[in-house]
Formats: sequence, C-alpha cells, structure tokens
Amino acid sequence: MKKVAIALFACAVVAAAAQQVKPESQIKYRRGAYEVMNLSMSHLGAMAEEKKPFNPEEAQRYADIIAMVSTIPRENFGEGTDKDTKAKPEIWTKRAEFDRKMDKMVAEAGKLPAAARSGDMGSFKKQVSDVGSACKSCHDEFRAK
Amino acid sequence: MKKVAIALFACAVVAAAAQQVKPESQIKYRRGAYEVMNLSMSHLGAMAEEKKPFNPEEAQRYADIIAMVSTIPRENFGEGTDKDTKAKPEIWTKRAEFDRKMDKMVAEAGKLPAAARSGDMGSFKKQVSDVGSACKSCHDEFRAK
Repeated sequence: MKKVAIALFACAVVAAAAQQVKPESQIKYRRGAYEVMNLSMSHLGAMAEEKKPFNPEEAQRYADIIAMVSTIPRENFGEGTDKDTKAKPEIWTKRAEFDRKMDKMVAEAGKLPAAARSGDMGSFKKQVSDVGSACKSCHDEFRAK
Repeated sequence: MKKVAIALFACAVVAAAAQQVKPESQIKYRRGAYEVMNLSMSHLGAMAEEKKPFNPEEAQRYADIIAMVSTIPRENFGEGTDKDTKAKPEIWTKRAEFDRKMDKMVAEAGKLPAAARSGDMGSFKKQVSDVGSACKSCHDEFRAK
C-alpha cells in the first residue's frame, strides 16, 4: 500500500508540474528540443555515414546534447497542446503507446554518449541508427506530414 | 610556430564545419537552443524566486540542459544567417564584442550544474541570476525587440 501511495503521490507531483507550464510554452519547449535533436542528429548522421570525418569531441558533444534534450518532449504534450501543431490526436487517445515510443527514444538516445566515446565505429554507427529508428517510429504514427 | 599552425588548423576546421551547415538550419538550430534554454531557465527562475519549491533533481536536470545547450548558438551565427531574424546586424559588424558576450553566457551557464548540486540556495540563486544577466546583456545589444 505504501508503494502505491508513493507512486500516486509522485504522479500527482508530475501532473501538477506539467499543469504549471502553459500549453503554448509546452509546444515551444518540445519544438525547440526537437529542433536541437534533429540538427545534432544530422551532425552525427553525417559522421556515421562517413559524409564527414569522425571527430570524437564533436561526436561526444552532440551525443551528450541529444541524450539530455531527448527527455524534454515527453512531458510537454500536456492538456491543451493539441492545437496548431503536427502532433496527431492519437497522441492523446493512444497515450500509453505514445509514451512507450517516447521512452524507447529516450533510452536509445541515452546510449549515444557511451557509443560516441567507445572508439568503436561499429557501435557508434549502430547507435546513431537505433536513435534514428526510434524517432521515425514515433513520427510515422504520431506526427502529421 | 607549431602552436600557431595547430591553432590555424583548428580554426579552419571549425570554419569549414560551420560552412557545411545551411544558413536556414543554423537559424533553426540556434532558435531551438534558445527556446530550450529560455524554458529551462523559467523553471530554474521559478525555483530561485521561490515561486515553486526547490526540487534538487529537477534543478540539476535543467541546469545540465542549459549548460549543454548554451554552447550551440555561438557557432550558428554564420554567414547568411542575418535574414528574417531578430539578430541585429551588429552581430556581424561587432563580432568580437558579440563573441565575448556569448562566451560569458556559456561560462555562466557552465557553472549552473555545480550550483544546482551545491545544496546551497544562495549559490543557486546567485548563479541563476548571473546566467539571466549574461543572457540579457547580449539581448539588449544584439537582439531586436
């Protein structure tokens, strides 16, 4: 019972925190985060595809940025943030599925820093590709064209 | 001589990297970064001003995000990125002054994670304020209303 009570309390705190942020701000926040992730990923993608030379410092920096910023969008799809956006209504009607895909993306992004530091191009390329797939999987289902 | 050669080489690499990113993408990248910083700062600001309770985990997370993302804008004011933007022409005519203010902002943002972890509300509040001042100092001079 205690665990359930704590879990319910934690959910209430998170919900309250989300409600404090205005819908317009939530939309700006997640868009900014996606923009940062997208352009950071394009740098990593170019290195993974050998369109530009692998630069360890640059790769680590972008990997760190993506891992950090990937945690922002999930909590910024609150109530009232479904207007004037590419976000499909299914985000709110199939929320568990959306959250699962978000968690997958955050988990894959979280592995990027280690892959960028591993010194193994195979691991690096695989991880960049896995992050890209996790992004795409969510976009395909939940983002309008 | 060797040091100078290395420095020149490093500059050439950075310049080449910047040129590879299209002006439109640079503008999107810096805007996204500013949006993320702005909204992350609003969370820290609310805690610093005691408008919401200080939450150590949340404070550390936003501090880490700001420190990391603060490094993005500087390199995304390249050639051709002066159109359809609030960025004033002075950024390019007084570049050394602009870069100095950028470096100051990045340096102050870089101190946020330690301040958020210090457990000392005085240090935390001071650092949030110092980052805010560094942002404002650049906006006042280089951002159109």
